Amino acid sequence: MRATYMYGPGDVRVIDVPDPIIQNPTDAVVRVVRSCICGSDLHPYHSMPPTPEGSSMGHEFVGIVEDIGSDVHTVRKGDFVIAPFAWSDGTCDFCREGLQTSCRHGGFWNAGDVHGGQAEAVRVPLADGTLVPVPVAEDSPLIPSLLTLSDVYGTGYHAAVKGRVGPDTSVTVIGDGAVGLLAVLSAKQLGAQHIILMGRHKDRTDLGREFGATDIVAERGEEGIAAVRELTRGDGTHVVIEAVGHMPAYQQAIGVVRPGGVISRVGVPQYSDAPIGFGTLFGPNITLTGGPAPARAYIDTLLPGVLDGSVHPGKVFDREIDLDTVPEGYRAMDDREALKILVRA
Amino acid sequence: MRATYMYGPGDVRVIDVPDPIIQNPTDAVVRVVRSCICGSDLHPYHSMPPTPEGSSMGHEFVGIVEDIGSDVHTVRKGDFVIAPFAWSDGTCDFCREGLQTSCRHGGFWNAGDVHGGQAEAVRVPLADGTLVPVPVAEDSPLIPSLLTLSDVYGTGYHAAVKGRVGPDTSVTVIGDGAVGLLAVLSAKQLGAQHIILMGRHKDRTDLGREFGATDIVAERGEEGIAAVRELTRGDGTHVVIEAVGHMPAYQQAIGVVRPGGVISRVGVPQYSDAPIGFGTLFGPNITLTGGPAPARAYIDTLLPGVLDGSVHPGKVFDREIDLDTVPEGYRAMDDREALKILVRA
Repeated sequence: MRATYMYGPGDVRVIDVPDPIIQNPTDAVVRVVRSCICGSDLHPYHSMPPTPEGSSMGHEFVGIVEDIGSDVHTVRKGDFVIAPFAWSDGTCDFCREGLQTSCRHGGFWNAGDVHGGQAEAVRVPLADGTLVPVPVAEDSPLIPSLLTLSDVYGTGYHAAVKGRVGPDTSVTVIGDGAVGLLAVLSAKQLGAQHIILMGRHKDRTDLGREFGATDIVAERGEEGIAAVRELTRGDGTHVVIEAVGHMPAYQQAIGVVRPGGVISRVGVPQYSDAPIGFGTLFGPNITLTGGPAPARAYIDTLLPGVLDGSVHPGKVFDREIDLDTVPEGYRAMDDREALKILVRA
Repeated sequence: MRATYMYGPGDVRVIDVPDPIIQNPTDAVVRVVRSCICGSDLHPYHSMPPTPEGSSMGHEFVGIVEDIGSDVHTVRKGDFVIAPFAWSDGTCDFCREGLQTSCRHGGFWNAGDVHGGQAEAVRVPLADGTLVPVPVAEDSPLIPSLLTLSDVYGTGYHAAVKGRVGPDTSVTVIGDGAVGLLAVLSAKQLGAQHIILMGRHKDRTDLGREFGATDIVAERGEEGIAAVRELTRGDGTHVVIEAVGHMPAYQQAIGVVRPGGVISRVGVPQYSDAPIGFGTLFGPNITLTGGPAPARAYIDTLLPGVLDGSVHPGKVFDREIDLDTVPEGYRAMDDREALKILVRA
């Protein structure tokens, strides 16, 4: 089959690899219907150490169950399924608490002998805990929105939940990528009345308005901070969702958060150390939270709204390509020509 | 009157200064009955840039109202009062939300023309918002416990509240100073069943056991982390209260917090940057919270238990000295000869 591998910065190739097969009784093999390219895939695209064997790519996919191991009970061959971006047993204490990203027996795609979703098929470990069957056909118009439940919608929602967004909290979302935009949608769903979106791509921020943003701030750095403060009587907002992952976005978050407020990070941090001392987090009692979203947990919460058409998170996809065109898709997303790219396997 | 000033590392002097007087209609002048030396006073004692004019010291005191301005209504001359470690108007939105340390018109002792509590008397700005009258005599045996409401008890309680300690959360407290010990007491009051205290001074950890600690870990660094993990089936605890402020304590907190858990800092951080990247906070979805406690807010919550004798936070005081002996008191606390020193003004 064909599958996507990255070999170093800017070096993405679609290559032939062996078809995945059941290795353990709890495995399933899923034929991918749609996958996509993630903003977080651009981090290794910029800075991955070159490696001759390459790294398989893709952590978001929906597809059809092709085969199951003897100990798989909750999905059957032929089921349409959503795969969240971490695989998990669904039974350990962390899974029961809704933190499937810390599952005692789980893991992430593209690590060890578990490969990625930007491919024709994927071996899914712990299929019972991981996969969510949905009663739709593989040509359903809902598929882009269902695919967002793999990662970006759940990640935006995680940001809002961890930030404790509610009807009485003002919110700033930093970043107009798919996660930022779906954080806006999530904040709106959780009742926020005042949602400021910081982003400078008009087509994206227009979608942000459609999802619920009440104000757009295109400026960045000190100017951006000043603009948010002007919109909030000098105070900043109760919640700041950081959906980028680079240090300037973190610094911006510090600049626009209200004393006693929360910075909720879902952009994968591309730094290790950062300011958290008296002058930044401690003095004003700022809480810093966030992390990889337990997307599996949020599928149960968010799926009904997708199925009944009350939300359309799939609008973040603005281009669809074939699997063999994935390298060009990376380039287009990196050049900000495309917001988020849907991949036909 | 006599008042304590610090001029540089290790250089504390009790000097003659003018008696405080009412400057604004909202001021009160309080004659200090008892003040004390705080663990956080030891930070400038180690590293304060030398200054010829000195810096007034002390932010915890109880006393008798000696004079009030024309616009003070909630305390009267002769009232016994507790002064929390920040002064605040009690009416702004932050005060109403219980974040008096971010009061729009308030501030901290020993800044500008507001002086400190390690003195015979103090001018208290915004007396209505700041001072809490308590119906006790100035020779009441409750005074040490009432004085802890100025700072250390409220600070320990803040750590537990911000960490969301409850009956189902395991807790590690790092630091066996007064704040750490009162964080143990607070965690116990909030229902925690499993409280690990990390400290290596047996007299202090014995008091920690009395306050509710179920386990003591005397080791520090990697050994300390291993010991806590052994007590928690390898996981660490849901909540870690960091009551020290130095980088090794922060690193220890990272090492003993359970995935999805909370690090609640109340030790004043003596660093600005620290690890918060994927491998520390982000990957395991750790929340970092804390800051200066709005002690004023917690007095309402904690005072009844002190008055009815159900808790005895004043046990953290293990020595009482006269004001003129304060420099020796700093030395004794710094040398860990004394846990916390009560000062007779």
